Amino acid sequence: KDKFNIAVLPGDGIGPEVMVIALKILDLVTEFWDLTINYQVAAVGGDAIDQLGKPLPEETLALCKQSDAILFGSVGGPKWSHLPSGQQPERGSLLPLRKTFDLFCNLRPSPLFPELASFSPLHPAIASKGFDILTVRELTGGVYFGKPSLRQGHGPDEYGLDTMVYSRKEIERIARLAFDFANIRRGKVTSIDKANVLMSMILWREVVEEVSRDYSGVEVEHLYVDNAVMQLMKRPQDFDVLLCPNLFGDIVSDQCAMLTGSLGLLPSASINSSKFGLYEPAGGSAPDIAGLGIANPIAQVLSLAMMFQYSFERRDIADGIRNAIQKTLRDGVYTKDLVSKSESYATTEQVGEHILSY
Amino acid sequence: KDKFNIAVLPGDGIGPEVMVIALKILDLVTEFWDLTINYQVAAVGGDAIDQLGKPLPEETLALCKQSDAILFGSVGGPKWSHLPSGQQPERGSLLPLRKTFDLFCNLRPSPLFPELASFSPLHPAIASKGFDILTVRELTGGVYFGKPSLRQGHGPDEYGLDTMVYSRKEIERIARLAFDFANIRRGKVTSIDKANVLMSMILWREVVEEVSRDYSGVEVEHLYVDNAVMQLMKRPQDFDVLLCPNLFGDIVSDQCAMLTGSLGLLPSASINSSKFGLYEPAGGSAPDIAGLGIANPIAQVLSLAMMFQYSFERRDIADGIRNAIQKTLRDGVYTKDLVSKSESYATTEQVGEHILSY
Ligand SMILES: CC(C)[C@H](C(=O)O)[C@@H](O)C(=O)O
Ligand SMILES: CC(C)[C@H](C(=O)O)[C@@H](O)C(=O)O
Repeated sequence: KDKFNIAVLPGDGIGPEVMVIALKILDLVTEFWDLTINYQVAAVGGDAIDQLGKPLPEETLALCKQSDAILFGSVGGPKWSHLPSGQQPERGSLLPLRKTFDLFCNLRPSPLFPELASFSPLHPAIASKGFDILTVRELTGGVYFGKPSLRQGHGPDEYGLDTMVYSRKEIERIARLAFDFANIRRGKVTSIDKANVLMSMILWREVVEEVSRDYSGVEVEHLYVDNAVMQLMKRPQDFDVLLCPNLFGDIVSDQCAMLTGSLGLLPSASINSSKFGLYEPAGGSAPDIAGLGIANPIAQVLSLAMMFQYSFERRDIADGIRNAIQKTLRDGVYTKDLVSKSESYATTEQVGEHILSY
Repeated sequence: KDKFNIAVLPGDGIGPEVMVIALKILDLVTEFWDLTINYQVAAVGGDAIDQLGKPLPEETLALCKQSDAILFGSVGGPKWSHLPSGQQPERGSLLPLRKTFDLFCNLRPSPLFPELASFSPLHPAIASKGFDILTVRELTGGVYFGKPSLRQGHGPDEYGLDTMVYSRKEIERIARLAFDFANIRRGKVTSIDKANVLMSMILWREVVEEVSRDYSGVEVEHLYVDNAVMQLMKRPQDFDVLLCPNLFGDIVSDQCAMLTGSLGLLPSASINSSKFGLYEPAGGSAPDIAGLGIANPIAQVLSLAMMFQYSFERRDIADGIRNAIQKTLRDGVYTKDLVSKSESYATTEQVGEHILSY
């Protein structure tokens, strides 16, 4: 089982240029571990709108369906911001991909890299304690997909309406994964909800509590989302796995990413129950620096590593890639986002070459 | 028009002891400015549950209805956490009060006090720039009050459901207030939404954009909530007024409070269109330090100041109270929450006396 098909969707902004690096790493990995890997590139996001009229063309979706995993770059940019929300690059590609493949589990690791702690917006007294948080976000339910979702009425009475809904089984399957991860990490799950106000969140808390009974080795705590955003800034070192409903996970995972101060280093995985997954950098398409050769390719390469770990069950290869990146960071080979103003920095390509050299 | 009726609801935890201080200040204010003030105390929250069986007894509600404003302490604590969510002190008192009096506008100022900047969890390089953010949160709509809100079904298919809904007129009235505030502050409104995913939020953004056209002197920007929590940590100095739907305002106002590092100093106001208002500290009931005489009374006293400004239209008195507090802080008279570990601190009462001395 070392033959894999990968759909490569570079997308917009810095997506294509960091993808070039990830594919070079992929080539090297293929050779070194003697794998058979087929990858095919397809258009997505704004690029696909320009070429084919929609953010997720049928061809692209068909390719994804034939593949074992999707390596995703990033999508979106000012060029397409005039489009109605449903047709925008981000929403128009990511949401249907999540739903089509039932990618209900979104994983966003956000470790504070000690070498880079000075980039954290946190006070050194807090950052120096370090932290390593894994957000486990439910990705196919909640207010993102609840029906009805509509706009109705006229004049001042016109209203927009969304439905936040969770079923017991939706909550249970994501909760089990979160506890599984905590089990092989530091043994703590913090579930984030708003059970003091919302019915869907009361059920969320109940089910999480029930699931926790099957994991006697894992500590569980529940925080209201408003309190969670406060505690994450005050004592990030106290958290291990954050278990979140879709909307709160969107907020909290980005908060954790910013806490590390190194968004350009953070990968993400969105997987389903058959280990099919979509792997993408946590940061955005950064159109302002696209094409300048200064984008940080590490998040994209670490996304590739997550692909090997979760979809291909080749933790050895994932760790190999991560090692090369750790060494690169330890060598101080940083792109512009990670150096102080006046210092010199490496280009996207140079960082890529450096990773390859390991 | 200098005759005012105030409903005083001390509540639980540190509520009663900080309220004592606020009432002393109120007595002094009454005398100094020669006002006629009637205030009557009533039970709320856990205290009301213990005494009268429910968090918002009829007597208390009746008193509020006869009053021009409510001075609220804080509610909640572990003693009542076994109760079903609808009967809990916080939800069972605050939500019905907000709805009964149509308190649609929640104001949460969060200035970084320069003397106390070291308490901010932010990096000194960021905190040293200072910031002064006013969150304007819609408080009677959105997912907090949308119908249906229910739990249904059985077994794994059981689900909990909430409705996030906003009408054009609900958005418009809160948006106008936010722009009015920006007009007399630094002229910038940042509206926080999730218009890339939610229908209610698409309408939110549209209406905010429309309202902004009536305020040519005010700059408007729109941020998705996930991006907002990141930017608030990275560049808090860039924000003036944050305009938020109910749920996002809950999250973001607490984030801003934590950014100041001095939750014990922050008041809040929840007002309606006839200037009736509920005034309460932004922090919680802090049951762990209740009764020790070490709670910070300043947030409660500043809530009183907000009452004079917004409900009684006596900005002069509000400023008088704020001045006394500023002097107290400048004199270094701090309660325990604001001093470093080993330093000595003032009691709740001493801080009160010091404020009174001005
Ligand atoms: C682009 C948007 C639809 C998406 C989300 O809200 O889920 C993004 O913010 C994310 O977190 O992947
Ligand atoms: C207690 C709770 C219902 C309330 C809210 O969510 O609005 C609180 O967090 C607040 O911000 O006043």
